[in-house]
Amino acid sequence: MTIRALVWNENVHERKNPVVAENYPLGIHGQVAALLSADGSITASTATLQEAEHGLTESRLEKTDVLLWWGHAAHGEVRDEIVERVARAVWQGMGIIVLHSGHFSKIFKRLLGAPCALHWREAGERERLWVVNPGHPIARNLPRYFELENEEMYGEPFSVPEPLETVFVSWFQGGEVFRSGITYQRGAGRIFYFRPGHETYPTYHDDTVGQVLRNAVHWAHNAERHPELLTAPNTPVDQSIERIVERGARLTRHPKST
Amino acid sequence: MTIRALVWNENVHERKNPVVAENYPLGIHGQVAALLSADGSITASTATLQEAEHGLTESRLEKTDVLLWWGHAAHGEVRDEIVERVARAVWQGMGIIVLHSGHFSKIFKRLLGAPCALHWREAGERERLWVVNPGHPIARNLPRYFELENEEMYGEPFSVPEPLETVFVSWFQGGEVFRSGITYQRGAGRIFYFRPGHETYPTYHDDTVGQVLRNAVHWAHNAERHPELLTAPNTPVDQSIERIVERGARLTRHPKST
Amino acid sequence: MTIRALVWNENVHERKNPVVAENYPLGIHGQVAALLSADGSITASTATLQEAEHGLTESRLEKTDVLLWWGHAAHGEVRDEIVERVARAVWQGMGIIVLHSGHFSKIFKRLLGAPCALHWREAGERERLWVVNPGHPIARNLPRYFELENEEMYGEPFSVPEPLETVFVSWFQGGEVFRSGITYQRGAGRIFYFRPGHETYPTYHDDTVGQVLRNAVHWAHNAERHPELLTAPNTPVDQSIERIVERGARLTRHPKST
Amino acid sequence: MTIRALVWNENVHERKNPVVAENYPLGIHGQVAALLSADGSITASTATLQEAEHGLTESRLEKTDVLLWWGHAAHGEVRDEIVERVARAVWQGMGIIVLHSGHFSKIFKRLLGAPCALHWREAGERERLWVVNPGHPIARNLPRYFELENEEMYGEPFSVPEPLETVFVSWFQGGEVFRSGITYQRGAGRIFYFRPGHETYPTYHDDTVGQVLRNAVHWAHNAERHPELLTAPNTPVDQSIERIVERGARLTRHPKST
Repeated sequence: MTIRALVWNENVHERKNPVVAENYPLGIHGQVAALLSADGSITASTATLQEAEHGLTESRLEKTDVLLWWGHAAHGEVRDEIVERVARAVWQGMGIIVLHSGHFSKIFKRLLGAPCALHWREAGERERLWVVNPGHPIARNLPRYFELENEEMYGEPFSVPEPLETVFVSWFQGGEVFRSGITYQRGAGRIFYFRPGHETYPTYHDDTVGQVLRNAVHWAHNAERHPELLTAPNTPVDQSIERIVERGARLTRHPKST
Repeated sequence: MTIRALVWNENVHERKNPVVAENYPLGIHGQVAALLSADGSITASTATLQEAEHGLTESRLEKTDVLLWWGHAAHGEVRDEIVERVARAVWQGMGIIVLHSGHFSKIFKRLLGAPCALHWREAGERERLWVVNPGHPIARNLPRYFELENEEMYGEPFSVPEPLETVFVSWFQGGEVFRSGITYQRGAGRIFYFRPGHETYPTYHDDTVGQVLRNAVHWAHNAERHPELLTAPNTPVDQSIERIVERGARLTRHPKST
Repeated sequence: MTIRALVWNENVHERKNPVVAENYPLGIHGQVAALLSADGSITASTATLQEAEHGLTESRLEKTDVLLWWGHAAHGEVRDEIVERVARAVWQGMGIIVLHSGHFSKIFKRLLGAPCALHWREAGERERLWVVNPGHPIARNLPRYFELENEEMYGEPFSVPEPLETVFVSWFQGGEVFRSGITYQRGAGRIFYFRPGHETYPTYHDDTVGQVLRNAVHWAHNAERHPELLTAPNTPVDQSIERIVERGARLTRHPKST
Repeated sequence: MTIRALVWNENVHERKNPVVAENYPLGIHGQVAALLSADGSITASTATLQEAEHGLTESRLEKTDVLLWWGHAAHGEVRDEIVERVARAVWQGMGIIVLHSGHFSKIFKRLLGAPCALHWREAGERERLWVVNPGHPIARNLPRYFELENEEMYGEPFSVPEPLETVFVSWFQGGEVFRSGITYQRGAGRIFYFRPGHETYPTYHDDTVGQVLRNAVHWAHNAERHPELLTAPNTPVDQSIERIVERGARLTRHPKST
């Protein structure tokens, strides 16, 4: 079975900043898609902010198993109704992998219900990601730790909810730490946040980063969709599983049982 | 130290429906406040939808340690900016206890980032709440289980995130179960959802329900406020804890270190 | 890739009690293995208490991806060193699925570090298992709920640690509830507890139960082994990743770096 | 209300190693008790390995609200029946705070059911503990981070179960990270692991460490005891809450309902 991954990118820095353009001639979206395509069981396509409906139409999301999200400069330009659409897709079972500065994207904050703030420093310092849960599917085939010689620093406290699982914790040269790989579930959808990926550094050219992303796509994939999780149906009294007789005062009229 | 609880209620059914008015002559807010006031270390006041800014001004929230929320018919009338204000207060450390049909309130869905849907039936059937975590502070002084002879049924799946802790699970006469007491944290704020409380039944006249609510207020109370969790400050390179030298390409200009 | 499941059973009731013998002519182990074998990607074999080393030799465990455990009358006869061996296998990545009265097995209590106690009643009453996390891999292809017309009752509080995930919650005819499907991880090994399976009832002849068990085997399968999680190696100062100089008093002599 | 804390120490290094003896003339136990006694609502006493029953008699544990545990060289000398006794006390509601090398104590491994292994290096390097959950009671009145100029390094992966909550994460000068403050619950008892405390460094003379320990004692305190969590009583059919009639085959004779 092939997993259909969709890599979304705001695609802003690549078009304005020559350093980023040179770093990612395919765009961050194109480069991340290339990393995923190294896995024969993943089919990766891309979408960007500039497309109609940001490339995230209903029909597109219906054909998406796992969405990857990179944004930074243009979080505010993502339309609220598209954010809600993506949230509904996640709740029904689409996986989502939020990358780096996506911690402040509308969709990540929407799904976590938390500030998702942190400290940061752009100094090209060394980051070392430690695998704290080596048995987790996202850590498959990884070394004990891996280094990114130049990265932006993100420092704790990261004001996110207590993760379901913590997979990576980062050490930074300047003295900070960060929970760099954390999982959540919302509705039937699995969520993975992965910290590295500053646009001016060659992070998405790193082999180990590619392995993490491919692992995460597999982990986040849910073959089923659960639209019923978004609805709150009445169960009529005369259709109750165990037979009961209505008692006491009631507010609403009897819903028709059909 | 006194804990300042604020009981918020949409206060709609009490004014329109004679059954509810007779059940709660003080309003649901007044009755819940009375339950809390039985604890000498809690000071309980009330606010309703009809007040200016729904009674939830900035200054009011600043003086609130734990907010209780009851809503049902008028979720849509709660203004979005007030919801955001409450969310920010929670993130900074204000506790919140969401009651019954508040599972579909804007603030609960905002904080959980999930559909928060369920099945329901209004038949006045028996609910039995089992204490599944007797060592939890919210279960203090409770019996092994307690019954509400007439309650609305809420049935699983309850599409909320995996709880931090599950304190109560309900058995319903008609055949369903429900995770009726669950905890979360968002930012520095503690969240407790407590299922019972249908407006046409005498739930908030029940002694054990009162004990649960008082316990929950104590548990949700955080004496500190953490506004810093909402900000994402830059840490200038020349002020890094461990001395580092800037390297690599950078996107932004040097923030002034002050 | 084939998953190698090993179904372990104390195999006591089947040999002494004609009701159980008639119910499970293959033994519970044989019947569970038959349920698993309906999935072409699972190879199921069996082991019992009566075999040498209870059928759980080191070499056998090395060839096992997921172990299923049924025990009741003979928990005390399982040798402690075998329990430790199984625990070490789990920590290294072998999955384990503990069934029904296995809640009181040495291995389950060993892995959870908790009393794992509960209330019980043998009355052949109706159990209804609700899927509270329909998006979980263990709930794949399941209905909203399923019933076992005759089961032993297990009632809360179930004194286990807060689960990583709760998948099923049971309703019992006599008035109790139970968290019937819960997950944990210890070391690199995934653990699933599944409540139903009383020996005198035809639970392991139920199609839905079979689906749950097959799903659980897939979920618990970890293709990697992590023996390093059991060791606490010294990292010599002269081999530290970031160069440091030894300072302060020290207790131990310099380990040889090799 | 006064919280009765008991500080247990193996008390081995203090008597054999002059560096440790000079560092902790009161013993580690005495010094930790002094830190706790700075809080007027905590009464701290001590016990050591050398006392009868290691100073952990049944009557002593009955008078203990929160036990603190420091051990390193003599884990193996702690008698198994005392470990079981302490575990049973925790399950019933006694809090336990495990310090530093206590990660490998029998009682910590017993309660967590996991290897609890890690990497280590004794080089007197700098440790910086970041508060990742500033809203947690254990983080009350703490700065954003605090430093211990000389500490032993503990490095990930720390093979413990996924924590209920992560409060601290450490940065080490030599390049490692560690989850240094983590919480669990077993039965009705709360568990906190706090990493720092190598015997040759002045860690327990640090003011912030004292604040953490005092906070942790308050957090771990449970005023109730729940011996019922250790028992698995039968609920006779004729005493079921909802009336049921026995059906189907049964294995055991009718327990007498009394």
